[in-house]
Amino acid sequence: MDDIARHVDLANLRESEMAVDLSADESGQAIYDFIADMYPICRSITGDGVRRTIDLIRNYIPLTTCEVPSGLQVFDWTVPPEWNVRDAYIKNSAGERVVDFKKSNLHLLGYSMPVRGRMALDELKPHLYSDPERPDWTPYRTSYYKTTWGFCLPHNQLLAMPEDDYEVCIDSRLEPGHLTYGDLRLLGRTSDEVLISCHICHPSLCNDNLSGIAVATALAQYLRKMDHRYTYRFVFAPGTIGSIAWLALNEAHVGRVKHGFVVTCAGDPGPVTYKKSRRGNAEIDRAWSYVLKQSGDPYEIEEFSPYGYDERQYCSPGFNLPIGTVMRTPYGKFAEYHSSADNLDFVRPAALRDTLSKAISTIDIIENNACYRSEKPFCEPKLGNYGLYSGLGGVGAGDYQMALLWILNMSDGENSLLDIAERARLPWEMIKQAAAALSGAGLIRSIVPDPAK
Amino acid sequence: MDDIARHVDLANLRESEMAVDLSADESGQAIYDFIADMYPICRSITGDGVRRTIDLIRNYIPLTTCEVPSGLQVFDWTVPPEWNVRDAYIKNSAGERVVDFKKSNLHLLGYSMPVRGRMALDELKPHLYSDPERPDWTPYRTSYYKTTWGFCLPHNQLLAMPEDDYEVCIDSRLEPGHLTYGDLRLLGRTSDEVLISCHICHPSLCNDNLSGIAVATALAQYLRKMDHRYTYRFVFAPGTIGSIAWLALNEAHVGRVKHGFVVTCAGDPGPVTYKKSRRGNAEIDRAWSYVLKQSGDPYEIEEFSPYGYDERQYCSPGFNLPIGTVMRTPYGKFAEYHSSADNLDFVRPAALRDTLSKAISTIDIIENNACYRSEKPFCEPKLGNYGLYSGLGGVGAGDYQMALLWILNMSDGENSLLDIAERARLPWEMIKQAAAALSGAGLIRSIVPDPAK
Amino acid sequence: MDDIARHVDLANLRESEMAVDLSADESGQAIYDFIADMYPICRSITGDGVRRTIDLIRNYIPLTTCEVPSGLQVFDWTVPPEWNVRDAYIKNSAGERVVDFKKSNLHLLGYSMPVRGRMALDELKPHLYSDPERPDWTPYRTSYYKTTWGFCLPHNQLLAMPEDDYEVCIDSRLEPGHLTYGDLRLLGRTSDEVLISCHICHPSLCNDNLSGIAVATALAQYLRKMDHRYTYRFVFAPGTIGSIAWLALNEAHVGRVKHGFVVTCAGDPGPVTYKKSRRGNAEIDRAWSYVLKQSGDPYEIEEFSPYGYDERQYCSPGFNLPIGTVMRTPYGKFAEYHSSADNLDFVRPAALRDTLSKAISTIDIIENNACYRSEKPFCEPKLGNYGLYSGLGGVGAGDYQMALLWILNMSDGENSLLDIAERARLPWEMIKQAAAALSGAGLIRSIVPDPAK
Repeated sequence: MDDIARHVDLANLRESEMAVDLSADESGQAIYDFIADMYPICRSITGDGVRRTIDLIRNYIPLTTCEVPSGLQVFDWTVPPEWNVRDAYIKNSAGERVVDFKKSNLHLLGYSMPVRGRMALDELKPHLYSDPERPDWTPYRTSYYKTTWGFCLPHNQLLAMPEDDYEVCIDSRLEPGHLTYGDLRLLGRTSDEVLISCHICHPSLCNDNLSGIAVATALAQYLRKMDHRYTYRFVFAPGTIGSIAWLALNEAHVGRVKHGFVVTCAGDPGPVTYKKSRRGNAEIDRAWSYVLKQSGDPYEIEEFSPYGYDERQYCSPGFNLPIGTVMRTPYGKFAEYHSSADNLDFVRPAALRDTLSKAISTIDIIENNACYRSEKPFCEPKLGNYGLYSGLGGVGAGDYQMALLWILNMSDGENSLLDIAERARLPWEMIKQAAAALSGAGLIRSIVPDPAK
Repeated sequence: MDDIARHVDLANLRESEMAVDLSADESGQAIYDFIADMYPICRSITGDGVRRTIDLIRNYIPLTTCEVPSGLQVFDWTVPPEWNVRDAYIKNSAGERVVDFKKSNLHLLGYSMPVRGRMALDELKPHLYSDPERPDWTPYRTSYYKTTWGFCLPHNQLLAMPEDDYEVCIDSRLEPGHLTYGDLRLLGRTSDEVLISCHICHPSLCNDNLSGIAVATALAQYLRKMDHRYTYRFVFAPGTIGSIAWLALNEAHVGRVKHGFVVTCAGDPGPVTYKKSRRGNAEIDRAWSYVLKQSGDPYEIEEFSPYGYDERQYCSPGFNLPIGTVMRTPYGKFAEYHSSADNLDFVRPAALRDTLSKAISTIDIIENNACYRSEKPFCEPKLGNYGLYSGLGGVGAGDYQMALLWILNMSDGENSLLDIAERARLPWEMIKQAAAALSGAGLIRSIVPDPAK
Repeated sequence: MDDIARHVDLANLRESEMAVDLSADESGQAIYDFIADMYPICRSITGDGVRRTIDLIRNYIPLTTCEVPSGLQVFDWTVPPEWNVRDAYIKNSAGERVVDFKKSNLHLLGYSMPVRGRMALDELKPHLYSDPERPDWTPYRTSYYKTTWGFCLPHNQLLAMPEDDYEVCIDSRLEPGHLTYGDLRLLGRTSDEVLISCHICHPSLCNDNLSGIAVATALAQYLRKMDHRYTYRFVFAPGTIGSIAWLALNEAHVGRVKHGFVVTCAGDPGPVTYKKSRRGNAEIDRAWSYVLKQSGDPYEIEEFSPYGYDERQYCSPGFNLPIGTVMRTPYGKFAEYHSSADNLDFVRPAALRDTLSKAISTIDIIENNACYRSEKPFCEPKLGNYGLYSGLGGVGAGDYQMALLWILNMSDGENSLLDIAERARLPWEMIKQAAAALSGAGLIRSIVPDPAK
């Protein structure tokens, strides 16, 4: 694996600020604008579009670009040739481009081989892909591993195409090169890692792809400013083959990954959906579930299934990493999925901000969660001695006093703060503050070093 | 135990075919016809009626007849004297048979001692059994272990009996002899056994008794034609004492029994009821539950209770065998239970075929269920390399592709195919086919030898 | 701990009988009358009121009085000075007592320091406590550990108090002395203990305090007359500091406590509420739940929470005793809670008797519950051989026969009689009788010595 090129050109980092005020819906505009910047680029699982996308991300966070050579064996897969496209079209006999890659990169079947020639409609038709169920939209289709070529277009347009002598041109190159991904490590107080992953291989598609990239970038930027217990690993990689390559190249270290999630489809107006990791009861599963339940917003929690995004690889049985998937409307459940309608109109600033905000809330739990042990386990400690009791005898306890009592009672080294918050049905923020107060008073002690510093 | 006679007269086997087309309701007629053949015989827990019944079964399958001598101690029980009846009646003073064993063997209290005499109604009445709640039917009653005599008759008939000088005759013998049961072993690829048991001690009663015998016979005939992993053991034995004798005589080998079920009440028009084994979560419990759920038909699943049929013995705490009970309407929950109304009108060909069909589906699961281990546990294998992927990128997965993915993802040696089918909510047939394809491609390997060959 | 005085003056015991017929609602009057006797006394966490209360209890049961000196450190707490009150009032300038401790001891803030002086309303007001939400009742308030003084009065009275020159007198003493609690041990056949605890620190409050004392006293009197497996420990102690002192003084022996409950708020007309121990599935939790479910009466079962009565101390993580809490309407859920309206009108004889009766039913389960092992685990034993079967073959089993079968089937040493009763859904009494019959017949044997003698 010595042939993997890695470079991070720190001198060229612009260090732009993607300003997101978590409490203001409209502040999602900064995330949205970043999506708009990336939208026109023709991405695929390899090629210059991925590199340009990573360069745009590097305007905000110091991503390392990794180049994995074509032909490298990664588990059961082989890194494919690199694909780049200069132009692609179908011209009619009048010389008009009736299907034009330059108008929308979705028009070209992903990984189309180079083609140049003239043909009748009958000969052309087997290479034309459309979606009869959504006849006005161009579908997104690829053929990475079976060498062929094709164009995608609205079904109505396909039906209207007259018999003619068509000129077909695909000026693409499929040749040895590299698969490119971006990797960022934000060192924490411990070497335990949280992995946040998104795919970067879809062309001009907003919700399925760009929303995940933009939210992950904003989240990385947020984390860079804070002191954190975990080391955060962000992976921006092409779907499937990219995460497989990353796992192959990082196999020795994946044991460090204690939590993580894939983020995608993060900007549509639907409620947040959390799909659990294969383990089903990992701390990340419980933290996301708790955040969604406490939010008061509508939400969905799905069991793991082996279909979806790169959780398929992270949660393969040999790895079985505690990694879930964060989405709003899941793949395949919104009509615009994998079509030209998944465009800049479909994603919303407020939804992007909301996804980011809930990810940050979840990370706050992960960061601060720990099992404590009471230092005064026999009977209740006399809270008044520690300045933690005020009030008159005879009146009931308020929520904060209940949080103190719950933590003291449950802290036998077996129950984490998240366990306690769930059982007490109290807000995380209150449990966290109460734990800090009790810890500060010397009444509880974490059973692991440095949970919350 | 050397005094147990066993004989299977292979030369005399007729090897008739009970033709059952599992997909055609009316094909249950063949099972029904077999019930009609057995219906007139006076069976009890011992005697020639049992022998004649076993001989009828031997028209279809090569059952071994086992003769256990009276007086043999089997666990806490003693094999009783053998009981046979030539005739029994109550005549009025006009010489008319007002209660006649020859008209229905239900009229005689099972195991009645020989009696001959004349008596007034008052003296006779303590020996007359009727069911006031169902006054037109003759109830079925027995007294195996308390020596007495009696007649059973419709309550309305009892009420109408005039004072008279009655002649009572019970020409029965109660003398040392044998308890008879039938045993069939169908050798499989392994010595692990599936036990299928039914009782054969009820006289002219169709649902409670004959339906179980007939369905078990048809099932054995079906299994004889197939290659199977398990060795199948069919026990056709008198209720309670018969299964106790079988367990006593086979105690050394019951550890081989990995699954099993008792079958009875298999022909009434109600939905199938599966009563779980004492273990409650045995593979047989889960397989039957899955088949019933997937069937789309109404069904009932009951928890184990220590009352019912021979599961009482198989599931006694010392054995605790994984044996459930398959019924349609359970004992005691149909009005005709243990009465003359449980006759040839009460059982239905289609119901008999349906019970058989579901038993065969359950056996198909047991036969093919196994835990596999992925041979490519790190990331997904590239299914296209094995001819297991077709289609274009960008389109969702069909059910069969999902079955492949579920099996690959869950095959960590801990999850059986049945576990996976339940979690994936996919039909068993599809999971089975997908597992065969993956196994054939070398992508998964069973953790036990020879699950499905 | 040698300075703890213990005395039980057996010569002076009156040994009165609190006659309670468990089957007659009106027999609760005897418990009610005892409450009426205790009602006028001014109790607090220390002082002569507690001593007089214990003396009243000692009319019925031979309680040991324990005196714990002020200043003794008990875990994180210190036994406070002893508090006694001779008189307390607020007089207006006309010399009329407008707030008078002699009319109701609730008027004085618990643990008020001595005060004597004259002051205007403005100066007085910070020392006046009322409940605006229940303006006609005097609230119950205390300040045990923060030295201050105050009066409690109805809010409407407070609002109506004119500007005046008030004379304030609190003739109390706060000086080194003792904390007093009562302890009773009823020796059983084993040294394993059942702990029954109630608090005795509330002044003229009936449901929250006196009902628990009276029911616990009646229960102790009931237990004194029976032979019991467990040793019963009754603790009548001031809330919080009293149970903490008891735990500190008995720390070496609390491992003997196998079951227990706190009893309080036992006399209001609401349904019985059982709050589970911290363990949540302790035998006492299951026994109380079973009794409440089987009763046919409305009931509530609550999960443990670290707020309430002395279960807070018994269930602190270092002890984690299997101790629940028995109430009718829980603290804080009845309007009269901690107010002058929790008076003799609020508690009802029938409710008191019902709480006692259910406690006795629960104790009957605890006393007789055990895991048995069948002595005939292979197949069913032939019950007729032991006089445990009567009836004719062909008829279904009655409840008692089912109880016999359930116990025989489940008695593998793993399932207790309570497990079996729950699974069989049969009344405890029937299960207990059936177990006795089977044990008497030598068919089952307890896996622990002496469960039911």
